[in-house]
This record gives sequence, structure tokens and C-alpha cells, in this order.
Amino acid sequence: MNKKLILKVIGLIMMIEAALLVVPLLLALFYHEHDWIYFLYTIIGSGVIGFVLYSLRCKKKTLHAQDGYFTVGLAWVVLAAVAAVPLCVSGYIPSYLDAIFETVSGFTTSGVTIMDDVEILSYSMQFWRIMTHWVGGMGILVFMLAISPVAGGGSAIHMLRAESPGPTTEKISPRISTTARYLYLIYIILTVLQVICLMITGLSAYHSTLIAFGTMATGGFSYSNASLAMLTVGQRNIVTVFMLLAGVNFALYFLAVTGKIKDAIKNEEFLWYAAIYVIGCVAMTISVCVRHVYDTVGDAIHRVTFTMAALITTTGYSCTNVDLWPWFAKHLILLLMFFGACAGSTAGGIKVSRVGIMIKSLRDSLHNLIHPRSVNRVRFNYKEVPHDVIRSVRFYFCLFIVLYAISMVIVSLDPKGDFITAFAAVDTTIGNNGIGLEGANGPFSGFAWYSKVVFIIDMLIGRLEIFPVIILLNSIITPAKNAGRAVIKEIRRHRV
Amino acid sequence: MNKKLILKVIGLIMMIEAALLVVPLLLALFYHEHDWIYFLYTIIGSGVIGFVLYSLRCKKKTLHAQDGYFTVGLAWVVLAAVAAVPLCVSGYIPSYLDAIFETVSGFTTSGVTIMDDVEILSYSMQFWRIMTHWVGGMGILVFMLAISPVAGGGSAIHMLRAESPGPTTEKISPRISTTARYLYLIYIILTVLQVICLMITGLSAYHSTLIAFGTMATGGFSYSNASLAMLTVGQRNIVTVFMLLAGVNFALYFLAVTGKIKDAIKNEEFLWYAAIYVIGCVAMTISVCVRHVYDTVGDAIHRVTFTMAALITTTGYSCTNVDLWPWFAKHLILLLMFFGACAGSTAGGIKVSRVGIMIKSLRDSLHNLIHPRSVNRVRFNYKEVPHDVIRSVRFYFCLFIVLYAISMVIVSLDPKGDFITAFAAVDTTIGNNGIGLEGANGPFSGFAWYSKVVFIIDMLIGRLEIFPVIILLNSIITPAKNAGRAVIKEIRRHRV
Repeated sequence: MNKKLILKVIGLIMMIEAALLVVPLLLALFYHEHDWIYFLYTIIGSGVIGFVLYSLRCKKKTLHAQDGYFTVGLAWVVLAAVAAVPLCVSGYIPSYLDAIFETVSGFTTSGVTIMDDVEILSYSMQFWRIMTHWVGGMGILVFMLAISPVAGGGSAIHMLRAESPGPTTEKISPRISTTARYLYLIYIILTVLQVICLMITGLSAYHSTLIAFGTMATGGFSYSNASLAMLTVGQRNIVTVFMLLAGVNFALYFLAVTGKIKDAIKNEEFLWYAAIYVIGCVAMTISVCVRHVYDTVGDAIHRVTFTMAALITTTGYSCTNVDLWPWFAKHLILLLMFFGACAGSTAGGIKVSRVGIMIKSLRDSLHNLIHPRSVNRVRFNYKEVPHDVIRSVRFYFCLFIVLYAISMVIVSLDPKGDFITAFAAVDTTIGNNGIGLEGANGPFSGFAWYSKVVFIIDMLIGRLEIFPVIILLNSIITPAKNAGRAVIKEIRRHRV
Repeated sequence: MNKKLILKVIGLIMMIEAALLVVPLLLALFYHEHDWIYFLYTIIGSGVIGFVLYSLRCKKKTLHAQDGYFTVGLAWVVLAAVAAVPLCVSGYIPSYLDAIFETVSGFTTSGVTIMDDVEILSYSMQFWRIMTHWVGGMGILVFMLAISPVAGGGSAIHMLRAESPGPTTEKISPRISTTARYLYLIYIILTVLQVICLMITGLSAYHSTLIAFGTMATGGFSYSNASLAMLTVGQRNIVTVFMLLAGVNFALYFLAVTGKIKDAIKNEEFLWYAAIYVIGCVAMTISVCVRHVYDTVGDAIHRVTFTMAALITTTGYSCTNVDLWPWFAKHLILLLMFFGACAGSTAGGIKVSRVGIMIKSLRDSLHNLIHPRSVNRVRFNYKEVPHDVIRSVRFYFCLFIVLYAISMVIVSLDPKGDFITAFAAVDTTIGNNGIGLEGANGPFSGFAWYSKVVFIIDMLIGRLEIFPVIILLNSIITPAKNAGRAVIKEIRRHRV
């Protein structure tokens, strides 16, 4: 393991985070808020440590696959740990574990909150809290790669692979850093566009920006305890449109801009995504209307289209209490939370393309079982899917279920962990979603500390698509095992 | 498709079932019960139709893989449909769908009942109801193969493969029919042994036989509404031991009898099975004791060991209301319901060997991800697991989850289908288990007809390990699709 290079990369990330913290610092000074001091402390601390680590001399400039995954996992943990400092030291979230839960939820764009009352935050602190979404949205590594390639080309690929959402990395440009820059450009343009749209409806620039951060990152943190229920119908419809836009593979915008609009629309994953959205909306609207949850059909359609967009893009904004919906709709919610939106978007979840490849490959394997001599080729997006991709999709799926089961069993130790609460809570965290049901509908402050740790790990697992976090955990657990043995030895020694 | 040969096989099965029905007929005459007439009608009907079908002339004596699967799926449906006739016509279960639910639950050894009061049944009818467990336990096809090989050797393998529980078919003897005979011999010996043990404790021969049928088939139907809560502690401990024995791969008994006891004990699946049982018992006992569900620790241990055995062997007998247990224990129940016991036993579920191969292969794939150049070999039971077995295990697992999700969504349309009820109901039916939680704890009479249909399909899917039922459904749905189109055409014509 190239420890020095890993520390160097972590140092760079800490310096970048210090730079990002300047934004809420300036905002605090602008609004004459006392919180500027906490931001300043964190900037100095993170900046100095980051600089020291970054200054480490390191001869080898390559990272192996394992190191790449490890670095990404570690980077997200460090990022969240530093971001949690101002939230904790300022006293808004007294427990540091809770503060880390909040920033992990932010950076992973999950949008589940630990805060019983988010409205107590100052303007600058609220901005920082929701800004984590926007930073996390496109992945810190893509961000880092776009700005400054510390490590060599091969290492960059290892890190990008650890973080790219979806089964395959689609290349817009042969150079990764160029790709990253294009992706960021699209991200920024869409964000600005949404801010403008919301401002036209009369919302302040500050609030519009926060909502745009939460939407484009498919995050879901809101500055209000009511999520987005306080917005007008028109404003919510704007959010619906931008949520759906954020769930599309960003590479398709690139295609569309370069004149290949037909190719973009014909993209198979995009068609599945659109179909899931439309069918889901129709099924849920019927289900909700049959039980007369809302007074008018129009109201039902509005709330279902909004919730469904928040659901499949894993944004997790809400404008209604879904616990009032019939069980059929709630089952669909729990199911669609797994799916997520398109690969290459800012959304979490398993991703539509994985689900599509999965279903097609199952159908083909079944066909093969009936006709053993037939040669099957799974095709997705008009191309044959290589066998190793199918294998990795199934592997991912199986691993996902196993981790789900383990999480459920641990959370069930929690006094709050009845079945539906545990299921929905693991669902919403591992899918980076933010929509909760029953006991998981609302702030997560009531859970026990071990449940919170499980949720933090699940959010990271969901965002980084499992592998880096497992490798990180493995390298933590292995020394911990030895440490555990040492502790037992120590205890025995003292007892005797 | 070799339709004539398939019909011939079905005919044979109907004739065998007519022969089996003679047992309850004689019992009805012995007890001077009126029900003998219903058995007689069914024997005549089934026997005559069976004879006609069996008399079909058929030149080709081979079945292709698809036909083999199809035949097995159809055979189970026919078997259940015929067995349901006396239950329905006699008026004990007025709805034919409900009666089929009951017999499917019987033959698949699930043990969930549709009857609000099972104690209303006459002696002979009760015997027939529980005898379905014993017949289904070892698989009708194994049974058929043992007695009379109608079709050629190749066809037999296709049918056995469609029905053998577990990832691979372990051969005791090179000849399939010989293997089947040995398996049946072990099955009968263990059943007789249990009847003797129970009779020594003072239970009547009739009741001992019914309990032994339910235990050795890992079924779970009881002649009492209280399941086995009315037995003494000693009697229940006997049942616990025999449930655990029924969950072991029967091939191991063969090994043990032929002097290879060490090999039998060293069998890796057996060790996993034992480990899961012991660890599960310890975890659940602690969980139950911490919450003081029972007055004494001894009582807790007794009830946990019994329930845990009923759980992992998928027998589904109960002696306590598990809804009173803490959520941690209930989550474990829901999880372990998936697992099932050893391959090659009468138990349902995914099977321990599949779970073991799955976990080992995931660990190895993960290792491969970190060290891309390493060559991994998954070993199970001291042998390398071929790649196609690993592939099929993962495929099975993925398909299982997909079917689970579909079942859940349909059942959620049911007014009774809240999340935990639907989850537990699908869990207990697809795993052929019989232990239910919350809304699924108790008779299934309250569910809507479409939920019952889903459960019937799930029980068949669970028992036949998915594939044959899917092929059967596929061949039903395809003409149904066309029929649906014809109906739509008809409607249009009449509207115009």
C-alpha cells in the first residue's frame, strides 16, 4: 500500500474542503452571524493538517486497485468528519456522531436528517449543511480529478471506477479530467437554471440556491422542517422537473448539446427510466385516488408526480405524508427506492441500467435453462453486454441483499427497530434516498448509536456502490480484531 | 413438446393418487365416518381419468429438458387439484380455491393453513390432509421414479433435476431409481421411529402418525388449532430432535449406515447447518430472556430450541406466539426462513449449501476485486465448486429476490397486506415454512383471492425451486395473453 500517496491525496482533499468552507464563512460575515468563528477554526485546522499531509514527499506516483478503493472510502469519511466540526462545535448538533451522520447524509446526497428542528440553524450553517449535497453530488473524486490530477493516469482510473455511479464508465472524452470538467459544467448550468426558475416565482436567491443544491445533487435536505411542503404548487412542479433532469445520465446532455439528440433519447436506460416514472405515477395515482387520500384528482396527480420524482431520483424531498397512502403505494415506494435513477447521474440506488441488465439476463438465463443449447446474448442499449458486466451486476445485487440483511438484524436490536421501520430506514440510507416510512419517516434522532453507525456505513456503501467501503471496513476490522484480542489479554491480566 | 408422454405421466400420477386415497377411505370405514363416500368418488374419478390418460399410445419415449420441467410443475398442480376434491365436496372447505391452497400447502410441505378451525375435520379427512405432507415430502417424482420408470433414463434425470432440493444432485447409487428407493427407505424408517418414540410417551397411534408425517416431511400441519402447544415438553423435545433429523441431507444417513460416519459428520453443509442452529438458538434465547418473555430460562430454552428447529427445517410447527418475541428475534426468524435446511432433505428454503456457496463466492469475488490478478477457487465440502454451480446459485438468488418483490407488490393490493404481513406471508410460503408473524400468524383465510393465488404459486415455486413453475406459468400466460387479446376484440365488437 502506497501510504504516503494516500495521505497526500487526503491532504489535498482537506485543503479543498478548507477552501469550500470559505463560502459559509463569507456568508456568516455577510449576515453578521456569530458562526463565522467556527468556520474559521475548521478552515485553519483542516487547511494546516491538509497542507502538512500534502507536503509529504512520495516517490512512487501509482496507486493499485485496492489503494484506489481505499483512498476513496477514506476520503469520504475524512470529508464528512471535517464538515461535521462546525455543526458540532457550534452546538447545533451536540453529539459528534450525530453531526457526522448529518454530513455523511449530506455528502452522500441521502438527505435523511438527524435534526429534530432544522430551522434553528443560522443562514450560514444551513448553507453549509445543504452545500455538502452539492459537493457530494458529482463525487469528490470527479471534482478532484477535474481540478488537479495529483496521482498518475492509472491511479485516477482506479479512483473513478470506485466512484462512478453505474455498471460501466461511459467516456465522453478520452481524458478523464476533461470528462470530469464537462460533467461539472453541465451540473453547474442546470443548477443555475433552476435557481433562476425558482427566483422568477418569487423565492429569494438564498432559498432558491439551497433548493437547487438539494435538487441537482438528488440530495433532499431542506431548510424547512416541512421539507418542500411550504412551497407553492408551481414551485414544486419546477423542482419535479429538475429532479427528473438530475436523474438522467449526464453524458446524454453532452450528446444532446453536440447535436445527437436522437441518440440521447433512444438511450435504453433513459427509456427504462422514463417508463418506470410514468408507470409508477399512474399506478400510484390510481392507488391514492381509490382510497380518496386527496380531495381532488389534480392534487393527487401533483403530489404523486412530485413524490415519485423525489423517489426514483433518490432526492427524497417530500410534500405529503406518505404514511397516509395505501400499502400498495408504500410497497412500490420501498421497491423503487432500491432502483434509483440512471447511471452517470447524481442519483443513488442500484441504478436503472443495473436493474435492466439484471432483468434481461435473468430472462435469458431462464431461456437457456429451457433450451440448453441456445446461445444467449444479453443486449442493453443496443450493444451486447459483456459477460463480466452481467457477472458484476449479479454480484453487486447479491452483495447488496446480504448487506441489507446484516443491517436489518443489527438495527432490530434498537428499541425503535420494528420491522417496517428497520426495513425503510436501511432502504432509504443504502439507496441514498431520504424518503422514509413509519418509524423512519422524519428525523433519525430517535435511533440508538449503533443503528446510526449502521446507517452511516449504509449511506457510504450506497453512494460508493459498496466496494470501497467494504475494503475500508476490512482494513479497519482486521487491526481491530487484533486490538480486541489485546484488550481481552489486558482484562485477563488485571483480573488475575 | 411430447404432449402424449406428458399426459401419460400425469395419468400415472392420478392413478397413484387414487391408490393413496384408499388409505383415508379405509380409515373412514374403520371409524364409521360418513366421509368415505367423498374419498370413493375421488378415487373413481381420478382413477378412471388417470387410466385413460395412461393408456394413451406414445411412440417417442423421451422428454426434453423443457418438457421435464413442465411435467413436474403440472404434476404438482394436478396432484393438489385432485387432493382438494374430497376436502371441498365434503363441505369442510367450501371454496375450491381454498381447498387447493390447503393441499398445495400440504404437498409442498409448507404447512400454512387456510382453515380457521382445523379441529372440525373428521379423523379420516384430517389424516388425508396431513398425509399430503408425507407424500410431498420426498417429492412425488422421486416417488414415481422409485416405483415405475415410465419414461426413459434421460427424461428421468430432467425430472429429478427439476425437483431435487439443492444446487447439485448427489448420487448415492448410479441408478436414479435405486437412489430414490434408498431415500424412501430412510424416510420410512425415520418416520416409524418417531411414531414409536411418541407412542412411548402415551400419545395415540393415530396422533403420533400425524405428527410424524408433519415432522419428517418438514410440513407443519397439525390436527390441533394450537399447532403443537398442547403436547408435553417431552413430546415436543422428541419432535425437535426429529425435525432436526429431517433437515439433514438424507445421503448422509446412507453414508453413516455404510460405516462412513466420519465423512457424514465432516460434511460441510451439515456443519453449517449445525452452526446456524446453535448460534441462532443462543442469540434468540438471549434476546428472549433479556425481555423476560418467559418466566424461566429453562422454558425459554425449550421454546427457542423447538421454534428454531421448526424454523430452519421449514417445518413450521409452533408452541408459542412468536409475535411476543422482541424484534431482533423476529428479524432473525424472517431471515432464517429464507435459508432452509440441507440440500437433499425434505426441507424448503434456499438451502444451507446455497447460502454457504453464496457467502464464500461473494467473499472470493471481493478478494478478486482487490487483487485482480489472483485466481480464486470457491471450495465447499472440501471440493472445488464449479463455476456454473456458482453462477446458478447467484442466478437462483437473484430470481428469488425478484419473485419476492413481485409477490409483495401484488399482496400489498390486499386490504390485509400491510408490509410486515405481506413480507412474512411471502416469506413463509416461498420458503415452505409455515411460521408466520403479525397478520400472517394464523390461518390465511382472511386474504383476498389474488393473494391466495400468489401464495399458491409461491409455495410451488419454493418447493420446486423456482424453475418448473416459471416454465409452467409461461406456458399458461402465453395462450392467456392471446385469449386476452381475443376478449378485448370481442368487447370492442359489441361496443360498436
